[in-house]
Amino acid sequence: MTGPRTAAHQLIEGHLQEGRMVPGEEIALRVDQTLTQDATGTLVMQELEALGLDRVRTELSVQYVDHNILQADERNAEDHLFLRSAAHRFGLWYSKPGNGVSHPTHMQRFGIPGKTLIGSDSHTCAAGALGMLAIGTGGLDVALAMAGEPLHLRMPQIWGIRLTGALPDWVSAKDVILELLRRHGVKGGLGRILEYHGPGLAGLSAMDRHVIANMGAELGATASVFPADEAVRDFLRAEGREEDYRPLVAEPGAGYELTEEIDLATLEPLIAMPTSPGNVVPVREVDGTRIGQVVIGSSANPGLRDYAVAAAMVKGRQTSGRVSFDVNPSSREVLQDMTRTGVTFDLIAAGARIHQAGCLGCIGMGQAPASGRHSLRTFPRNFPGRSGTADDSVWLCSPETAAASALTGVITDPRAWALREDVGPPRLDLPTEVSVNREMLEPPLPPSRAAHVELVRGPNISALPTLDPLPDELAGPVLLKVGDDVSTDEISPAGAQALPYRSNLPRLAEFTLTRIDPGYPERARRAGTHLIVAGENYGQGSSREHAAITPRLLGLRAVLAKSFARIHWQNLANFGVLALEFADPADYGRIAQGDQLRLGGLHAALEADREPQLLVSNVTKGEEYRVTHRLSGRQRSAVLAGGVIPALAAR
Amino acid sequence: MTGPRTAAHQLIEGHLQEGRMVPGEEIALRVDQTLTQDATGTLVMQELEALGLDRVRTELSVQYVDHNILQADERNAEDHLFLRSAAHRFGLWYSKPGNGVSHPTHMQRFGIPGKTLIGSDSHTCAAGALGMLAIGTGGLDVALAMAGEPLHLRMPQIWGIRLTGALPDWVSAKDVILELLRRHGVKGGLGRILEYHGPGLAGLSAMDRHVIANMGAELGATASVFPADEAVRDFLRAEGREEDYRPLVAEPGAGYELTEEIDLATLEPLIAMPTSPGNVVPVREVDGTRIGQVVIGSSANPGLRDYAVAAAMVKGRQTSGRVSFDVNPSSREVLQDMTRTGVTFDLIAAGARIHQAGCLGCIGMGQAPASGRHSLRTFPRNFPGRSGTADDSVWLCSPETAAASALTGVITDPRAWALREDVGPPRLDLPTEVSVNREMLEPPLPPSRAAHVELVRGPNISALPTLDPLPDELAGPVLLKVGDDVSTDEISPAGAQALPYRSNLPRLAEFTLTRIDPGYPERARRAGTHLIVAGENYGQGSSREHAAITPRLLGLRAVLAKSFARIHWQNLANFGVLALEFADPADYGRIAQGDQLRLGGLHAALEADREPQLLVSNVTKGEEYRVTHRLSGRQRSAVLAGGVIPALAAR
Repeated sequence: MTGPRTAAHQLIEGHLQEGRMVPGEEIALRVDQTLTQDATGTLVMQELEALGLDRVRTELSVQYVDHNILQADERNAEDHLFLRSAAHRFGLWYSKPGNGVSHPTHMQRFGIPGKTLIGSDSHTCAAGALGMLAIGTGGLDVALAMAGEPLHLRMPQIWGIRLTGALPDWVSAKDVILELLRRHGVKGGLGRILEYHGPGLAGLSAMDRHVIANMGAELGATASVFPADEAVRDFLRAEGREEDYRPLVAEPGAGYELTEEIDLATLEPLIAMPTSPGNVVPVREVDGTRIGQVVIGSSANPGLRDYAVAAAMVKGRQTSGRVSFDVNPSSREVLQDMTRTGVTFDLIAAGARIHQAGCLGCIGMGQAPASGRHSLRTFPRNFPGRSGTADDSVWLCSPETAAASALTGVITDPRAWALREDVGPPRLDLPTEVSVNREMLEPPLPPSRAAHVELVRGPNISALPTLDPLPDELAGPVLLKVGDDVSTDEISPAGAQALPYRSNLPRLAEFTLTRIDPGYPERARRAGTHLIVAGENYGQGSSREHAAITPRLLGLRAVLAKSFARIHWQNLANFGVLALEFADPADYGRIAQGDQLRLGGLHAALEADREPQLLVSNVTKGEEYRVTHRLSGRQRSAVLAGGVIPALAAR
Repeated sequence: MTGPRTAAHQLIEGHLQEGRMVPGEEIALRVDQTLTQDATGTLVMQELEALGLDRVRTELSVQYVDHNILQADERNAEDHLFLRSAAHRFGLWYSKPGNGVSHPTHMQRFGIPGKTLIGSDSHTCAAGALGMLAIGTGGLDVALAMAGEPLHLRMPQIWGIRLTGALPDWVSAKDVILELLRRHGVKGGLGRILEYHGPGLAGLSAMDRHVIANMGAELGATASVFPADEAVRDFLRAEGREEDYRPLVAEPGAGYELTEEIDLATLEPLIAMPTSPGNVVPVREVDGTRIGQVVIGSSANPGLRDYAVAAAMVKGRQTSGRVSFDVNPSSREVLQDMTRTGVTFDLIAAGARIHQAGCLGCIGMGQAPASGRHSLRTFPRNFPGRSGTADDSVWLCSPETAAASALTGVITDPRAWALREDVGPPRLDLPTEVSVNREMLEPPLPPSRAAHVELVRGPNISALPTLDPLPDELAGPVLLKVGDDVSTDEISPAGAQALPYRSNLPRLAEFTLTRIDPGYPERARRAGTHLIVAGENYGQGSSREHAAITPRLLGLRAVLAKSFARIHWQNLANFGVLALEFADPADYGRIAQGDQLRLGGLHAALEADREPQLLVSNVTKGEEYRVTHRLSGRQRSAVLAGGVIPALAAR
C-alpha cells in the first residue's frame, strides 16, 4: 500500500499473507491470538482433533468458560471437564468458570496492541479497543487458525469515525455506539471496519472503547479499531503489563473510504427498544414505561467504571420493589476491584442480586424476565426470545439509564432523575492500579506433558458429523421463508434449554429455527434435502457455527437470501451449505414457502473460473431466478466437498 | 404440667390450645409466625384463596423467594410476581429474590425467643437456635395457621442433648450435628424434639446453633430447641433488635424423656458420604478422595463466621484447578458483612464463584456436578440426584473441611492440611455490629390497600385441583414398591427441570417418582386408583406437599409403609391419601409390585371411635394383612372428605 495508512490498514498489512487490500477481494491474514468460549469451544476442540493437530501454532490461544455456567444438570460440568482436558492437550490457556466473560478477561490479561485476534464469539471485536485487529468468526475458522492457517475474509472498507467534543454528564460510551446504531441500523457496518479517531478519543478510557468496539458486532461490522494511544498505555500499566504497549495510530493524512463524525457533546441518553439493537430512540421519549427488571454487566459494559457509576447512583437508596436488579460482574478481576472499592457493597445494599462472573442472561442462561414485563439491560443484544422468555421485551441502555430506572421502577432518563433528586453526576474515584490475578488462569502445559493428556469426553459430547459432498443437482422444497435480519439466536437458540446441548449436535438440531417455526425440525427430517429463503442480513448476531451445522444435519443444502451477515455466510460455506443471493431482490417475493426448487449443474457452476451465477428453477411456479454467490475458489472447493473438514481430509 | 419444665415444654405449654402434653397424643398449638418460600409458597397462597382468607391472623408471616431464582425462562419470574401480589393481598411481608434463604434471613430480621414458627420448608426448625419452637410442615398446615387455626401434631418426646467441653481447633458446629447423625442416623429423631443444654453451649454462637438446629431435620426430629441465653441476646443486639430478647431456659431440675451427652472436645472433622446425611464417617477415613466441586453456604452453614473461616484458609492461595469452588451467600445481610469485612474479596481472589444469595445447588437449582465427580458441600442433604446430576456423589461437611479440600483437590482433613501448611487455626475478627438492611423487605400493606390488590396469575400458575371423597372401597394395583428412607426429593424432585413447575401441578405430576421409576407417571395414568408399598421412614426430607398432591392427582389413594416421616405423613392426610402402617412389618416382604390389593369398609373403619386397624386383601396372592393408621379424628374426617380443603369447604 502506498500513501499514509490508517491504523486498520497497518494492522492488515502487517498480517497479510495472501491477496490485495482492495475492498471486496479475498485476503488471508496471519492470526496471532485466538479465543474460544465454551458454547462454541467444545466443537472447536473436536475440530482440532479432526484436523489431527498436536499443538496450537498461534502465539497465544485461550479457552474461556463463560456461557454454560448455570449447571442445571451434569452436562455443563462435563463440557468444562472436556474443555479443560482439550486446553491441556492442545497447548491453550484455560480460564475456568467464574473467571469471567472472555472479552474483558482477554483484554485485561492478554490483549496486545498491533496483534490480530480471532474468536469463536461475535463480540471478539471488543479487543479493537486496544488497537488490535479482532474479528469474530465461526469456530472452524478459529480451529484452522490454531492449526496455523491464515484467516480468509473479504477485504473490508475502512470507515473513519471521527469523534469530537466530550460526553455530557450522564452520557457514556454505550450512548456512542447506540448513536451509531440509531444512525445506521444493524446492517450499517456490513463489509466495513470502523476506525475511530479524532480529538474526542481523549475522553474515552480503554474500557469505554471496549464498550463501543464490542457492539460494532451489532452494526454488522467486520471489526472496530481504536488507536493504541496513551489511554491504552494507561490501561496496560494498570494491569501490570506496560511492556506489552506499542503505539498504533493512523499515519498523518491517512484517508478513509467512508467517513463519519460524532460530536460527543451533542449526545444524550439513548436506548434500543425491543427487539433489535437498531431500534434506538432517546430515553426521554420512552421515559415512564413501567419495568420489571434491570440488569447491568455483560461484555458490552464490562469495566469497573460501569458498575461504579451505577453503585454511586443507588448508594444509600433502595431499588424499586417491583424491579429485579441484577448485577453480572464481567470478570473475576473486575469483581475483585468492585469488591475492594465498595462498589459491590453499595449495589448489594441497594437491592442488587450479585451473580457469578459470566455471560448469564446476556445469552439467556437464567435471568429470564416475566412475560409482559419490560427488562432493561446494558447488554449488546435484544433479539426476540434471547432472554429465555418467548414474548420478551428487552431494552438496551447505559449503566446510568439502567441505575436510574432500577430506582424508579420506570424507564428513566438519568438527567431527569438527577434533577429530581438534586444530585450531580457521580465523581468516581477509581483506583489507578487494578486487581491483577494471574493465578486464576491455567497456563498451557509443556509439550512433553500435553502429549499424554487424554480428552475427558462425557456422554453429552457427540462426535462431529460426517458431511457428504455437494450433489450436482439439488432439488427440494422451500421449507421455510423468513424476512430480514434473522439472527443466529433464532436459527440455533442459546438459552438454558438449548445451550447445554451445544456439544450434542443431533440433540441440538431439534431446536433449529424453532423460535420462528416450531415445526421446522420435524418437517426437515421428513423432507430431507431442502432450502430456505430469506431476506436481508440473514444470520446476524452470534458467531455460533451451530447455526450452519444443525440445519445442515436436518437436510439444508442452500439458502437463498437478499444478503447475508458475514460470519454466518462464512459458516455456511465451512459446512457445505450454499449461500446464494438473489440477482434481482424482487425474486424474493415470487417464491412461497413450500415451492419446489431445483438447482442443476452445480459442479460445473462452482468451478473456480466460472461466473458466480446460477439459475434456480421454481418447479411449482414454472419460473427461473438468477442467483449469485460470493464464494472464493477456496470456499467453492470446500462447498463441493461438503465442507472444510471433508475438503481438508481429502487433501 | 407439674414439676420443673424443659425449655421445649415451656414453649409448648405457652401455646397449647388443645390436647395433653403426653407423648404420642395429638395436641394443637397456637402459631405466632409463619414463613413460606417460593417453591412451596405458590400453593400456599392458592390455599389461602381457597380458604377465603382476607388477611393473615398470625403475628407475622413472611413470604420468601429463595428457591426458584435461576429463571431459565419466564416461569420463575411469574411465580415471583404472583407471590408478591399475594403477600400484598393477604398482609404478609415479602422478601424478594436476592434477599437470601428464608431461614437465616428470618433469624436475622424476625426471630423472637419464646415464639412459635411454622414454615412450609423442612429446615424451618433452624429457628430453634433462638429459643423458638420452629417446625417445618406441609404448606396447607401453614395456610391454616395463617388463617388462625392451630397446628396439630403428635406430642413429641423431649430429648435432652447435654453438651460439655469445647470444640477443638478445626472442628465446628457442623461436626456436632454430623456426630448426632453418625450416632443415630436419619430416623434417630422421629417423634422427638431435641433440646440442647449444658455447659458446652457457652462456646456456640446463635449462628452455630442455627447450623445444628437446621439439620435436626435430617434426624427426622420434629424440632430442635436451644435456650434463649446470652448468646441469643448478643445475636439480637448485633442485629439491632435487643428489645426482642427474652430469656428461655429449662427450669432447674427439669428432666428429659431421653438423654444424651456430647463432649465437644472429643469431636473431630466428620463427613456424610453419598447418598444420605446419615452415612457419617471421620474425614480422615476418606482423606485423599479426588473431588471436582466444593460448595460452601446454604441454610446449613449460613453465618458470616462460616464464610470467614473458609476465606481465612484460602486467602493468598489458589483453589485447585480441577475444583469448581462455589460460594452461595445465605442472605443479603450476610453478604453485606462478607463484603465489608474482606471475606468476599479473599474468596473471589482464591478462585471462588460467588453466586447470588439463595438456595441454588442445595435444592438442585444449578451447580450440578459432572457425572462421576465427587462434590463436597456444606449443605444439609445429599439424597441421590438432588444435585441435578442423576448419578451424583455428594458429601456433606463443615466449611473447614470444604475449604481445605478446595485447596488440595482431594477430600482433606483440615487438621492435616494445617499441619502440612504449618498454619494455626484462623483467628477471626468478626464485627460485633452486623449489617442491618430493613429496606430490602416489603412490609405488609395496610388492610385498606391490601383489599384492592389483584393476584398476578401468570399462565404457569394452575388452579388447585378438586379432590374427590374417599370411596368406601379401594381396589387397585401396587404400582410401586420401594425400600427404606425414600425422600420427598425422590417422590417430587426439586432441581432445575421440575422446580419451575411447582405452581403447575398437572405438569409437575409428570415428574412424580421418576427418580426411582421413570415409568411411574405413565403407569399411574393408565391404572387410575392405585397404591404404593414402602419401607421405613417413607417421605423423609423436604416438607413439599407436592409429594402428596401429585401422586394423588395420578390416582394414589393409599401408601402402605413400615413407617412414615412426620411431615409427609401429615401431608398425605391433608390431601386425602391413606397413610397405613403394617401391624407386622414382615408383611412388607409378602407384597410384590403389581399385586392387586383391596381395602373395603373404609367409611365405617375411619369413624372416629373405631380401633385404628384395617384389613388389606391381596387379591393376587389370596392373603390378608393387618394395617394401622395413626390418624386423629380431625385427620380421619379430612381423609374421608378427600382432603382438608374439601373438608373445610363442606363445613
